[in-house]
Amino acid sequence: MNQKSESHQQVKQPRGARRRARTRDSLLVAARKVFAARGYHDATITEITEAAAVGVGTFYLHFRDKEAIFNTVLAEGLEAIRRQVGEEIAHEDNPSLPVVVRAIFHQVYAQRDIIRIERTGEGVAARSSGPGILMETFTRFLEQAADLSPFSEEEIPLLAALLEGLMDRAFHCWWDEQDEPGPDLMADRVLHVMKHGFPASLFEEPQKPFFAPSAL
Amino acid sequence: MNQKSESHQQVKQPRGARRRARTRDSLLVAARKVFAARGYHDATITEITEAAAVGVGTFYLHFRDKEAIFNTVLAEGLEAIRRQVGEEIAHEDNPSLPVVVRAIFHQVYAQRDIIRIERTGEGVAARSSGPGILMETFTRFLEQAADLSPFSEEEIPLLAALLEGLMDRAFHCWWDEQDEPGPDLMADRVLHVMKHGFPASLFEEPQKPFFAPSAL
Repeated sequence: MNQKSESHQQVKQPRGARRRARTRDSLLVAARKVFAARGYHDATITEITEAAAVGVGTFYLHFRDKEAIFNTVLAEGLEAIRRQVGEEIAHEDNPSLPVVVRAIFHQVYAQRDIIRIERTGEGVAARSSGPGILMETFTRFLEQAADLSPFSEEEIPLLAALLEGLMDRAFHCWWDEQDEPGPDLMADRVLHVMKHGFPASLFEEPQKPFFAPSAL
Repeated sequence: MNQKSESHQQVKQPRGARRRARTRDSLLVAARKVFAARGYHDATITEITEAAAVGVGTFYLHFRDKEAIFNTVLAEGLEAIRRQVGEEIAHEDNPSLPVVVRAIFHQVYAQRDIIRIERTGEGVAARSSGPGILMETFTRFLEQAADLSPFSEEEIPLLAALLEGLMDRAFHCWWDEQDEPGPDLMADRVLHVMKHGFPASLFEEPQKPFFAPSAL
């Protein structure tokens, strides 16, 4: 929610609703910090309410349990990434796929605590809408591409899934544990393989035998 | 376990141990069928023991609980895929990456019930060794490649993760729900994008404005 819509709401909402919304926001900010520091399983509702400076009873006016606030933190984090990608490319009349991919890398990197938090609650985290956003974006670009050869239109869902897998690894195998490479270098590298594929040497016969079947 | 090592074991093991191993195998075969048909959460130990024609008490001589047999089914399924990939490429002196990728697609496809079973138990399934196998394979080929430009050797882990993400999507976004494309066509498609990248049109400016930021 940006400043403008918030102040708009403040005009219309009665004072109790405003206070209630502020408390909910404090709980979410506190929970994001506590989950980032301690992980889903070790974090407690008491730690969250202490960090938010509210009573434990207040917690239950807003969230059913730890799982509920965890999934709200993730959903609102992803929604914020989505909105900020939109803002980053808003000045472009007709953004190309590389522009959009770069914007996604910037915004995911800026909020990579969300990826790290999500990872601590595997199995608890509701199916995130993250892959959905990437799939939608890639599908739309694939549908608009002038020439997909050697692929057919029927293969658009497969191509979108492959692009999504490629990009997802940059988030989930890197930024969940390390900060480098940052978003611009990462976008360069990922866009390079998207456009040109992986180095040709990789597909040639290995120069010396090294691949013992038993080692697979 | 192949025929030979099994008969070898039969010579050495006392009869009780043989019977015990047979019962364990029956339980695993039955569990794989029951999990495939019903999913992790709906499957019951009673269904598994009925399918294996053993008593419920016998189950607990072999496995602690449903989660334990579930993870054993997955681990032994992945181990079988690994072994069969090794057998498929055993006749090649010096298999290239495309040969190994194709063999992995063949064998994963043949045992795609394992992927489907794994998916029904998200959060319960122990971190599978699947991605580990792919990462190892890609890393080894990248380390042997004569020329990785424009990438540096320091980027091998990133390249391996990207290759793994690309290939993983073929398993986890396709064969967990549908049977087409089969393994050879899938290998053709995935190897094409690995070698040559995605169609060039995809990276050009879209021909008409279609990407409203609000739609992201």
